[in-house]
Amino acid sequence: MTTLTDLYPSRGPTETITERCDPVVWPSPGASAPGPFSRTALASYERDGFLSMDDLVTPPEVAALKAEMQRMVDDSELREDERTVIEPDSREVRSIFEVHKLSGVFADLVRDERLADRARQVLGSEVYIHQSRVNIKPGFRGSGFYWHSDFETWHTEDGLPRMRALSVSIALTDNHDTNGSLMIIPGSHRTFVGCAGATPADNYKTSLRVQEAGTPGDEALASMAEEHGIRLITGPAGSATWFDSNCLHGSGSNITPFPRSNVFVVFNSVENTPLEPFAAPARCPGFIASRDFTPLAGRTRDNRPA
Amino acid sequence: MTTLTDLYPSRGPTETITERCDPVVWPSPGASAPGPFSRTALASYERDGFLSMDDLVTPPEVAALKAEMQRMVDDSELREDERTVIEPDSREVRSIFEVHKLSGVFADLVRDERLADRARQVLGSEVYIHQSRVNIKPGFRGSGFYWHSDFETWHTEDGLPRMRALSVSIALTDNHDTNGSLMIIPGSHRTFVGCAGATPADNYKTSLRVQEAGTPGDEALASMAEEHGIRLITGPAGSATWFDSNCLHGSGSNITPFPRSNVFVVFNSVENTPLEPFAAPARCPGFIASRDFTPLAGRTRDNRPA
Repeated sequence: MTTLTDLYPSRGPTETITERCDPVVWPSPGASAPGPFSRTALASYERDGFLSMDDLVTPPEVAALKAEMQRMVDDSELREDERTVIEPDSREVRSIFEVHKLSGVFADLVRDERLADRARQVLGSEVYIHQSRVNIKPGFRGSGFYWHSDFETWHTEDGLPRMRALSVSIALTDNHDTNGSLMIIPGSHRTFVGCAGATPADNYKTSLRVQEAGTPGDEALASMAEEHGIRLITGPAGSATWFDSNCLHGSGSNITPFPRSNVFVVFNSVENTPLEPFAAPARCPGFIASRDFTPLAGRTRDNRPA
Repeated sequence: MTTLTDLYPSRGPTETITERCDPVVWPSPGASAPGPFSRTALASYERDGFLSMDDLVTPPEVAALKAEMQRMVDDSELREDERTVIEPDSREVRSIFEVHKLSGVFADLVRDERLADRARQVLGSEVYIHQSRVNIKPGFRGSGFYWHSDFETWHTEDGLPRMRALSVSIALTDNHDTNGSLMIIPGSHRTFVGCAGATPADNYKTSLRVQEAGTPGDEALASMAEEHGIRLITGPAGSATWFDSNCLHGSGSNITPFPRSNVFVVFNSVENTPLEPFAAPARCPGFIASRDFTPLAGRTRDNRPA
């Protein structure tokens, strides 16, 4: 094995703070045609580490995606699949992973140019899907996700070397100010919080339910939130939030009767394919961190739904 | 014992819905002088079941109340007192009851005319303190309160016969849209949800931590929220929310670093003093449901803090 410098050390004995050394918006070599994001949008994404849009997909598309999600949630065979995560308390389905492989509807979505072209534009290269999932936060007793940087996990547990990945979360239900919507610390993507504590074996099995390893300490969170504030992301079904892989984000519980569902797609640059995990005993399974690095092709006209 | 008709049955074998038969704003006999609430404010309170104000107390008063709260939280003897409720997970102080008896600062507050006169105006009579407490929702791991009507508990467990009580919650920290602020279903105060299930003995000991008995079922909540919506109450420290005893309210968790503290005072009409519990094996202790019905006197000039 060659020795590789770990640019973003984490899961050591103590918490460490590292300034980001990667671009947020990567230069596109020879990109003369403007991408779908405007210059203003890109500048805002670069500054805050995220960008929300009110209507990435249309209401009929939302209806189709929701129906497909519901079909999968109701699929009793899929419920037993390792790709399905169950809520700790209510025993309801919380997430289904690898939806772009489980479903033609979601396969079409992830390579739709509205998504893939934006990902290519920000990451400055061809892209592939590192992860996809639907998240269902049930009403009444939906639990939250504690603060974390996705990159911290993807780096330590999956081996992504650089911050050259991004996520888009598309709302399939309205995101209110009351039903446990996404919270982001704007600007937090510029700082890497290396978390204290070794990674337990098969950490993903518990962290997808209740995350413990890989969460920043209270002091780091307080200092980031003091400096940058916290933004609550609300928006109607069909709205979307793009966010950098190193954005600190989380969400509270949902006691309202209104479930909060979204589809979540992670694009990684083909120039940033994972190595071995930087701080975990073994690789995660492929449905959590894909090892299929085939660049996304554009969606052909023939595949368009009628 | 005389037989008394229970106007608001609850904790039976099934959930029951009863329309409210009590006024929300009670007529004041012979009240010629207008109270501190304007007619518009009263009409809004009557319609929604609650009313928020941005500055019931001044910043220096907030500072004094916060300091007093902190003194009590840090008091190791008081931590062992039955009036102190500890967070289930973090072991931090969640509530301290009967603060108007534990502290001169809070004693002054509850009979301050800005509070007591408004309570008298809405309840149309002299008033006394049924309950007082400070609530501290710590940052990072603060848990929420599930949906409930206070009156449902005060009726079944404390014996309050009628809906003639109200609460004021005064914010001692900023209530953001992200730190587990109060949520209210406006208009829910006009319907009484009689909850299914008998009251366990000493229910208050667990319900102050995690409420189970006395919470409405999913269907009733969904129907109320569909009909009325849900309002998130945010506001700066010093802001206050007045709400009817039968308002359905709750709050989500708080994973932000910003704690959310408030002082909570319940005024009951002296014409509505508690009988025996309507649906509980025994009375709650006095610090939960006072049996001292002495009408509040005005705060004298001599007692004003310098």
